[in-house]
Amino acid sequence: MRFSFGKCFPLIVILATSINAVTSLTWAKTLNEAEIKTIEQLKQTALNTDLSYQILESLTTEVGHRRLGTEGDKKAIKWAVAKMKSLGFDKVWTEEVESPQWLRGDIEAQIKAPYPHDMAAIGLGGTVGTPAEGITAPVIEFKTFDDLKAAEKGSLAGKIAFVSYRMQAAIDGSGYGRAVSARGNGASVAAEKGALAFIMRSVGTDNNRSAHTGMMRYKDNIHKIPAAALANPDADILVNALKRDQPVDFYLKITAQHYPKNMIKSASVIGEITGSERPDEIVALGAHLDSWDVGTGAMDDGMGIGIVLATGAEIAKLPTQPKRTIRVILYAGEEVGFYGTKKYMELHKNEIDKHVIGAEWDFGLGKIYQITPGVGAKALNNIHELAQLLTPLGVAMSDKNDAIAQSDMSLLSKAGMPSVNFGADGMRYFDYHHTANDTLDKIDPEDYQQNTAVYMMFAYFAAQSDVDFRK
Amino acid sequence: MRFSFGKCFPLIVILATSINAVTSLTWAKTLNEAEIKTIEQLKQTALNTDLSYQILESLTTEVGHRRLGTEGDKKAIKWAVAKMKSLGFDKVWTEEVESPQWLRGDIEAQIKAPYPHDMAAIGLGGTVGTPAEGITAPVIEFKTFDDLKAAEKGSLAGKIAFVSYRMQAAIDGSGYGRAVSARGNGASVAAEKGALAFIMRSVGTDNNRSAHTGMMRYKDNIHKIPAAALANPDADILVNALKRDQPVDFYLKITAQHYPKNMIKSASVIGEITGSERPDEIVALGAHLDSWDVGTGAMDDGMGIGIVLATGAEIAKLPTQPKRTIRVILYAGEEVGFYGTKKYMELHKNEIDKHVIGAEWDFGLGKIYQITPGVGAKALNNIHELAQLLTPLGVAMSDKNDAIAQSDMSLLSKAGMPSVNFGADGMRYFDYHHTANDTLDKIDPEDYQQNTAVYMMFAYFAAQSDVDFRK
Repeated sequence: MRFSFGKCFPLIVILATSINAVTSLTWAKTLNEAEIKTIEQLKQTALNTDLSYQILESLTTEVGHRRLGTEGDKKAIKWAVAKMKSLGFDKVWTEEVESPQWLRGDIEAQIKAPYPHDMAAIGLGGTVGTPAEGITAPVIEFKTFDDLKAAEKGSLAGKIAFVSYRMQAAIDGSGYGRAVSARGNGASVAAEKGALAFIMRSVGTDNNRSAHTGMMRYKDNIHKIPAAALANPDADILVNALKRDQPVDFYLKITAQHYPKNMIKSASVIGEITGSERPDEIVALGAHLDSWDVGTGAMDDGMGIGIVLATGAEIAKLPTQPKRTIRVILYAGEEVGFYGTKKYMELHKNEIDKHVIGAEWDFGLGKIYQITPGVGAKALNNIHELAQLLTPLGVAMSDKNDAIAQSDMSLLSKAGMPSVNFGADGMRYFDYHHTANDTLDKIDPEDYQQNTAVYMMFAYFAAQSDVDFRK
Repeated sequence: MRFSFGKCFPLIVILATSINAVTSLTWAKTLNEAEIKTIEQLKQTALNTDLSYQILESLTTEVGHRRLGTEGDKKAIKWAVAKMKSLGFDKVWTEEVESPQWLRGDIEAQIKAPYPHDMAAIGLGGTVGTPAEGITAPVIEFKTFDDLKAAEKGSLAGKIAFVSYRMQAAIDGSGYGRAVSARGNGASVAAEKGALAFIMRSVGTDNNRSAHTGMMRYKDNIHKIPAAALANPDADILVNALKRDQPVDFYLKITAQHYPKNMIKSASVIGEITGSERPDEIVALGAHLDSWDVGTGAMDDGMGIGIVLATGAEIAKLPTQPKRTIRVILYAGEEVGFYGTKKYMELHKNEIDKHVIGAEWDFGLGKIYQITPGVGAKALNNIHELAQLLTPLGVAMSDKNDAIAQSDMSLLSKAGMPSVNFGADGMRYFDYHHTANDTLDKIDPEDYQQNTAVYMMFAYFAAQSDVDFRK
């Protein structure tokens, strides 16, 4: 999951829309008894087997991390195409994207004086490098990004700016929005004040010495300065050193390189379980294929990949396919700029109204506790029926009807696609997000079975129904 | 804390001795009312102030890690001498030790084929380096160290041996003993079977990508092969790759170097609060000054340092010093071979019987829940009195009377010093032990206040009493 710059974080934004719940005891049931039986069978399959976990294990073992355009990404594309075919998807294709090349290079970060410490740090995605000899300069701390913004122009000349704001954990990830703006824009703001470099406490809720990367952008016409995140324990050491009221000299060396003319290629991978009655109507399930270039991208977004592939696979095994087509979209380059979804919007612009409903998994590390629709008022009762089926799994219906699908799929939602968001427990998500620690062991197999069951039930429910979910 | 090779882990070994509790309602109280009042005041001071935490913050910020003989160790010695003096210790001295030099160098570890992954790994303490070009060889997995021991001689020729045993967490750290023997002796056992190198899952209970170092030893007359630990998530990836029934090639490069003729110097730092009535009788409080060369040694054993220094400091502030001398010993080189304590035993061999009782803090990361004595039967009632004073802090009396002081001080216990062990919650201790993650944030300030209160109360109790704790 990444932060969409200039846009609101989909899990946080609360639209003014509230539910016009049409309570009625007489509406036609969405699914008949046989269909309900099928949905319950899919649930049992998800809860008693581990296909999604097997897929995730395969991805994290055989591929690993896969930043857009890297060798890992190329392997991931091949892996996804082969996996979809072997899992019984009956159409599988790729949609190519390209992006200018950025190489991460290496990083060295140290407190030089008065108390030398090696720092665990990582360059932010898209940072420029330092001069070859690195930068050594005194650090000026700002407790919040707003404090940095309020600094006077020129006041950071010859200095390294450091934002020490600590992200707070929350079940819905709502601490992220408050912390991440410094990551996106801190370097340019610091450069406007004259800083030589920008460093920040990681956008993360853990105390591990694995710094959190993630995308940043430079503003036009402002000098580009290097930008890095310190692991939280390292940020603590720096804060403690600064408390001692003497200058703290910091050394930063980053060998990152931009090659704006080297266009690197990648692709979204898309597969379908063709609908048996209304094949042109699409139930869209999304996840992103790329990850950051640390860890194995198990959580972000391997979990989503495993869930949507297993959902397609189990539905493909049914004696009769659901009426509508289930389209599983593994987007390219979500982390570095929504490349796959932008291309998708371009290629499918005349087909958006055929997406009868969609959902993306790109957040959470625990059980799903809530379903939030973003559908027409007339379809709310149908969503309530689905929610009732999900109740035994611990999923409650939100009192909002404002869902915009997560991450990539937010673009489809904004173009009119009805959407559902599944709120999964995110208390620990930002412990590992965009770090080397994003590895398979972080996923609890039982929670993951529940996640998968919810998706399978949703997908079958939406694809087998005739409901018009549009607003 | 380290594993003492060839010895039993002090927290695990349960001697056959059981308590011959002399229950009596008529024994003389150890302390009088005024003394009890003083002990309660010391408790309140510990619970309402944060001197031990301040000391720990100072050590971790101003010194950082401090492996025997390194720059950090030299700084730590100066820091400890200055700190003791500023805290009111009235005698402060150092006892020099020396050790042959070992340089850690760098490590690179990768799965090369069939699925390349960079591995988070660390060389075990004392490992030899690899050839300059590294070693690339197929990995053979052993689920336990016993399985490796059972392998046929020569069966690992041209291979890298990998022990994948996973340590279990326990409140008393009892999983450590079962896991650590592979660390100590795995390389020589693997070499006997012909292996080119030895790798193992970290001796740790976490799932962080911070591998756990710790001491290893080579057996005489066996070829020395390099030895490294993989972080737990990395060991998982390797295990998963090996499950696929195809050869897994591993690359290991370590640039460690032994310089047996370069003797590096270090020192234990010792300070006293001289007793007001029986200055030649010593209540000994121990911790070790050195740490591994990763993290800041906050937990291992910065916590111990903060506790014993704060204990001395608060007692030094009392209007009258306790009758007996409180001697605080910060041992050199515990991690790499008990250098400080061996030297101490040599220098103080005629004074061991003057150590009326002793305790060391070198384990635990949470509240103290238990006091275990190792004293003469006649002194048990006195320890019961102390235990009663500790009850409101959540400390219970063990039904054993077999305590051998932890780590360094186990040598004094074995030479006859009466001892007390304080059992602190160790469920999370081995998440961070000997890793880069051993940093200040891991210490809960409130738990640490309780730990400090217990030590202050014990020290005053023992130093103010006339009890003969000997067996």
